[in-house]
Amino acid sequence: MTDAQELGITESKEYNTGEWYAEVVKKAGLANYGPEGMSGFIVTRPRGYALWERLQGELDARFKDTGVQNAYFPLFIPESYLEREKDIVEGFDPEVAWVTHGGHEELEERLAVRPTSESIIAPYMSQWVRSHRDLPLRVNQWASVVRWEATETKPFFRTKEFLWQEGHTAHATSEGAWEETMLRLDQYEDVYEDVLAIPVIRGQKPDHDKFPGADTTTTVEALMPDGKSVQGATSHHLGTSFAEAFDLTYADTDEEERVCNTTSWGFSWRSLGALIMTHSDDQGLVLPPTIAPEQVVVVPIWQEDTKDEVLEYAEDLAEDLESEGVRVELDARDERNPGFKFNEWELRGVPLRFEIGPNEVDDGEITAVHRPDGESVTLDRDDVTDEIHDQFDEVFAKLYAAAEENLSENVREAEGRNEILGTIGQHGGYVKAPWCGDEDCETEIKDQIAAEIVMVPFEGDDEKHHPAVLEGDCDCAVCGEAAETTAYFAKSY
Amino acid sequence: MTDAQELGITESKEYNTGEWYAEVVKKAGLANYGPEGMSGFIVTRPRGYALWERLQGELDARFKDTGVQNAYFPLFIPESYLEREKDIVEGFDPEVAWVTHGGHEELEERLAVRPTSESIIAPYMSQWVRSHRDLPLRVNQWASVVRWEATETKPFFRTKEFLWQEGHTAHATSEGAWEETMLRLDQYEDVYEDVLAIPVIRGQKPDHDKFPGADTTTTVEALMPDGKSVQGATSHHLGTSFAEAFDLTYADTDEEERVCNTTSWGFSWRSLGALIMTHSDDQGLVLPPTIAPEQVVVVPIWQEDTKDEVLEYAEDLAEDLESEGVRVELDARDERNPGFKFNEWELRGVPLRFEIGPNEVDDGEITAVHRPDGESVTLDRDDVTDEIHDQFDEVFAKLYAAAEENLSENVREAEGRNEILGTIGQHGGYVKAPWCGDEDCETEIKDQIAAEIVMVPFEGDDEKHHPAVLEGDCDCAVCGEAAETTAYFAKSY
Repeated sequence: MTDAQELGITESKEYNTGEWYAEVVKKAGLANYGPEGMSGFIVTRPRGYALWERLQGELDARFKDTGVQNAYFPLFIPESYLEREKDIVEGFDPEVAWVTHGGHEELEERLAVRPTSESIIAPYMSQWVRSHRDLPLRVNQWASVVRWEATETKPFFRTKEFLWQEGHTAHATSEGAWEETMLRLDQYEDVYEDVLAIPVIRGQKPDHDKFPGADTTTTVEALMPDGKSVQGATSHHLGTSFAEAFDLTYADTDEEERVCNTTSWGFSWRSLGALIMTHSDDQGLVLPPTIAPEQVVVVPIWQEDTKDEVLEYAEDLAEDLESEGVRVELDARDERNPGFKFNEWELRGVPLRFEIGPNEVDDGEITAVHRPDGESVTLDRDDVTDEIHDQFDEVFAKLYAAAEENLSENVREAEGRNEILGTIGQHGGYVKAPWCGDEDCETEIKDQIAAEIVMVPFEGDDEKHHPAVLEGDCDCAVCGEAAETTAYFAKSY
Repeated sequence: MTDAQELGITESKEYNTGEWYAEVVKKAGLANYGPEGMSGFIVTRPRGYALWERLQGELDARFKDTGVQNAYFPLFIPESYLEREKDIVEGFDPEVAWVTHGGHEELEERLAVRPTSESIIAPYMSQWVRSHRDLPLRVNQWASVVRWEATETKPFFRTKEFLWQEGHTAHATSEGAWEETMLRLDQYEDVYEDVLAIPVIRGQKPDHDKFPGADTTTTVEALMPDGKSVQGATSHHLGTSFAEAFDLTYADTDEEERVCNTTSWGFSWRSLGALIMTHSDDQGLVLPPTIAPEQVVVVPIWQEDTKDEVLEYAEDLAEDLESEGVRVELDARDERNPGFKFNEWELRGVPLRFEIGPNEVDDGEITAVHRPDGESVTLDRDDVTDEIHDQFDEVFAKLYAAAEENLSENVREAEGRNEILGTIGQHGGYVKAPWCGDEDCETEIKDQIAAEIVMVPFEGDDEKHHPAVLEGDCDCAVCGEAAETTAYFAKSY
């Protein structure tokens, strides 16, 4: 489905990141923009959706192993429900898509297309929870949500409709809810690092940027090669605000009625944006073998007189790999030459290419080429089903190391306003600075260079804090008042 | 999460089917009704959703084995897109939920919440298909759709929002599209019969009841114990109507531009309604082991002096089963007695109950009780991981046989209008009768007893036709004009 003229990325990742990203998404067959009149929406094509499916599988298994059950709540939320938790309505009202008519009739009450589902899940939890024995209660749904943001569309990173999972839990105590919040953050970190090959840093959002109604919003942040941060996923300790708004209470062991503490946590297809942006290059998509729809492509290279033996060898190899559980594609197309195929599979992000010519057949070998860097390795045909896993690990390690290097080299310290501005202006990345906790100090930076506080390290996470904050008695880098903690400033997606 | 007073079904399946069904859905923890102001919506609880997840897995694997890739298209469809295929807009316009506002702004063009997605998928297919090499193109999405029907809500059977999959394919020829249509119908039949233990009959919808825009709508129909038919799933040959409306063409091998033929096919959570209705009884939910979230519940029965040995034996058994891949629940709750547990797990539809008391421990045995009929079997503890699969097969066979008996006993023949009315009035079920093909003849029956033509057998499917139709030269049972085919009249869900 890729025309010859569509092959090849023309934009540069380094110099023209936005256009390059859009080109990779389109030419690797991941997504198209939505129809006219629906800017902000995308169509997720099979190759894009396959990535999401695999991520779903990874997360879903982790959730189920840790007591979460899936459920499904209505797509719409009555306006009056949305209004019951005041922070939610203030936070989301400007972004809600409203259904006003059902068939030819105007509805008595407008219905919000869910921007997030706390306001419809909490009231049901309150029906299901009676006693402490019903706690913790954990449900998750895989669903799409709509947030009518005015900003420019960037497939996966920023779309009016997006796919995500939203987990919602109720607990007897605040401590229980806190453990849950952190467990889910751990799982998100795990999926970013072990599946997507993207190291993340963890912390919490500043108070003024918490999820509406939350006590604490925790986050994993990933640094892109262009120096901007991506909010990878968030996990919220909601305290009792939703439980109070929706009468979510339980009888404790003494039959005393108590208010639950709740959490919610979400991971969206923005993770695919981070994946594409982190590893891909000017030849197109780059994927770690953990998530690639095809982990290996076998490309036979023949002349007329060697065709039969080469093809047979290649087919046999592909079958062996497949029976080993490897996701393998044999590209035996007659109408394309090997060079075309190499380019096409590079564009599509297949991590390993196996080139099979007459020499490989004669020597009982395989020429394996790593997508990320073109490194070529000779493998023994007879050992391939063992060696393949080492090859996958090597490719994964290369991708992770490059992302890790980008991250570790781009966390800098600053102690003054101009140093923050200058450092981000020059290098991008994260700048950690002592901070008083006042939103005004973020605004001042934001107004100058569109950087914001993307993360505040957890208390006790000493190595992430600015040294002066750990020593105590230091000043906010922006306003000079007493600093309360460390802020990570960065531009962000 | 089930209070003592909530246990126990009070309504009768035979005498009060509707109320009984609602009670089973609620008390087995499958679903709740939506919030006030949102009649027609349901909340699918974890036990209900687990059934849907398993069905998804079964169907999805069949689709992927036969060339289908998943994708995701926008939730909304611009009104102008919906209007491009005239049958679709006429068919669905009265049932569309309309989004008119995004945030605080009124939209320039109203957006339909998808009632089905042909109108947004076909235009993208037309971008992706260039040549005959791109065909067949097959995509599927798992999604929710909204149809604003005014009828009474019946969880899973009839809800304004429902979960389904919708497959969409494009083909070079009408024959290709017809093969696809039938392949998907085969897979639906397969899932009904082999997973849900529900025999179905297949055929096509009468022309006046086809999917809007379709050439042919095929259907699998399941007969419920109360004598009503459920449209189990449908698969449509769409001919060229959508391809023409959305310029979906391809260059054939001679570089000639040709219009594609398309299909679409959908399977919704209505299947869960059929599942619940078919097998369950006055003790609650009954599930085949193929789909039950817990296939076996182990209930230890102890006195104080036997508790340790009984519990150890039961735990060991549960572990063995689990490592064999059996979905097993050990109910070792202290605060409930065995009788309570029996009732609760019966209500919840667990197909096999293993009772473990001191006698079983002494004899190295297991008392296994089949949920559908209470039959009790003694199993050898040491052979249980082998025998369990036979037990599952036995339970499945019992359920299938009962449903099969209901179906085979309730297909009757009629040759006159009064015979149709009388037979359905007395017995329910299907009445097959010669039919002229005119909708008026259906209307006449519908007006009298709310039965309709749910299915017309395929040409060549002789055993399903009325004998007089096969002989030729017979009259329509309703109007007396020349009959063209056989119609299956039935009341339906």
